[in-house]
Amino acid sequence: MAHTRLDPEARRRQLIELGLKMLSCESSEQVAIDRIAEAAGISRGLLFHYFPTKRDYHVAVVRAAADHMLEVTAPDPDLPVIERLRAGLMAYVDFVAANHALYVSLVRGAAGGDDELQQIFDQTRTRIVDRVVEALAMPPGGPAAVRTVLRGWVGFVEESTLDWLGHRDLERDALVTLQEQVLLSSIETAASVGGIPAR
Amino acid sequence: MAHTRLDPEARRRQLIELGLKMLSCESSEQVAIDRIAEAAGISRGLLFHYFPTKRDYHVAVVRAAADHMLEVTAPDPDLPVIERLRAGLMAYVDFVAANHALYVSLVRGAAGGDDELQQIFDQTRTRIVDRVVEALAMPPGGPAAVRTVLRGWVGFVEESTLDWLGHRDLERDALVTLQEQVLLSSIETAASVGGIPAR
Repeated sequence: MAHTRLDPEARRRQLIELGLKMLSCESSEQVAIDRIAEAAGISRGLLFHYFPTKRDYHVAVVRAAADHMLEVTAPDPDLPVIERLRAGLMAYVDFVAANHALYVSLVRGAAGGDDELQQIFDQTRTRIVDRVVEALAMPPGGPAAVRTVLRGWVGFVEESTLDWLGHRDLERDALVTLQEQVLLSSIETAASVGGIPAR
Repeated sequence: MAHTRLDPEARRRQLIELGLKMLSCESSEQVAIDRIAEAAGISRGLLFHYFPTKRDYHVAVVRAAADHMLEVTAPDPDLPVIERLRAGLMAYVDFVAANHALYVSLVRGAAGGDDELQQIFDQTRTRIVDRVVEALAMPPGGPAAVRTVLRGWVGFVEESTLDWLGHRDLERDALVTLQEQVLLSSIETAASVGGIPAR
């Protein structure tokens, strides 16, 4: 590819987009810096000018992937509560289906003891929990058990979606119904267990 | 520490035990090969004789940790169904509380795109699901939705336990009750959704 002049911000964005595209079909270990640079039409050296280490680049790509996922699953405030939740889950499952490898590397093992990546994952999960609390119009700072089941439920959604991706023996809508029903019954269970109010 | 003569199998076991002990209190990135060798009273070179790379060593330690977790949570066949499940969950939560860093590195990010580690995690989750199926005397090869929720529930247990560890604002027994109730209601939901029978 011909070398194109781009301002630094645009170049950074282009490199991250390329990483996202490659991560959608192969695992992060397989994405070679050389191929990213080649696809961008720049030298390996220039890539390292934008991202000093392979890890810096990886962190930037994962952050972009998490932002992208949060964006496509953003709740539609015009929908009634339960439909808003369902629409978010549909968008999530569709995102996952369209970005299998990217998703696996987001959910599974991508952190590898890296604190910054861990933080991105935690923040993403917290954002999802906050949205559910908002969508269901739950009072903030409710019982600890509710916070605990909401975090647990995010794990449920991640794992059940991975299982579904590996088998595809359920309709997408049935998967979403499962995730939705498990959320509602989990919250009910939590309300009956209680616990010290969460901060 | 004095150099002790050990046969190869015993030496391997000793090195893995040391790794487990260190991983119980610090993340895998911080566990230095040098300190393991020093604690075992052997040279770094001899350690690499048993485990050719740091990754080989890490895989062996993670496998031992997963086996250890499965062992301490093994179901007691003398207990009635629901109590068997509850006892398994109690043992799991206690294991996690006693091995926080080890557990975090097992659940979170430890795979880092490593296929062998990924396999260990998947096998461990499959074993847990098999135990639940057995404990609840469910027919094997039931509806796909049941398999999907059971995998999802393992994610629920992992995430809710991590949340609990970070806050400790619930009684251990309340956490286990949540996990147990969410399992039962999830299975009920799955039975009503069905899906193509799992292979």
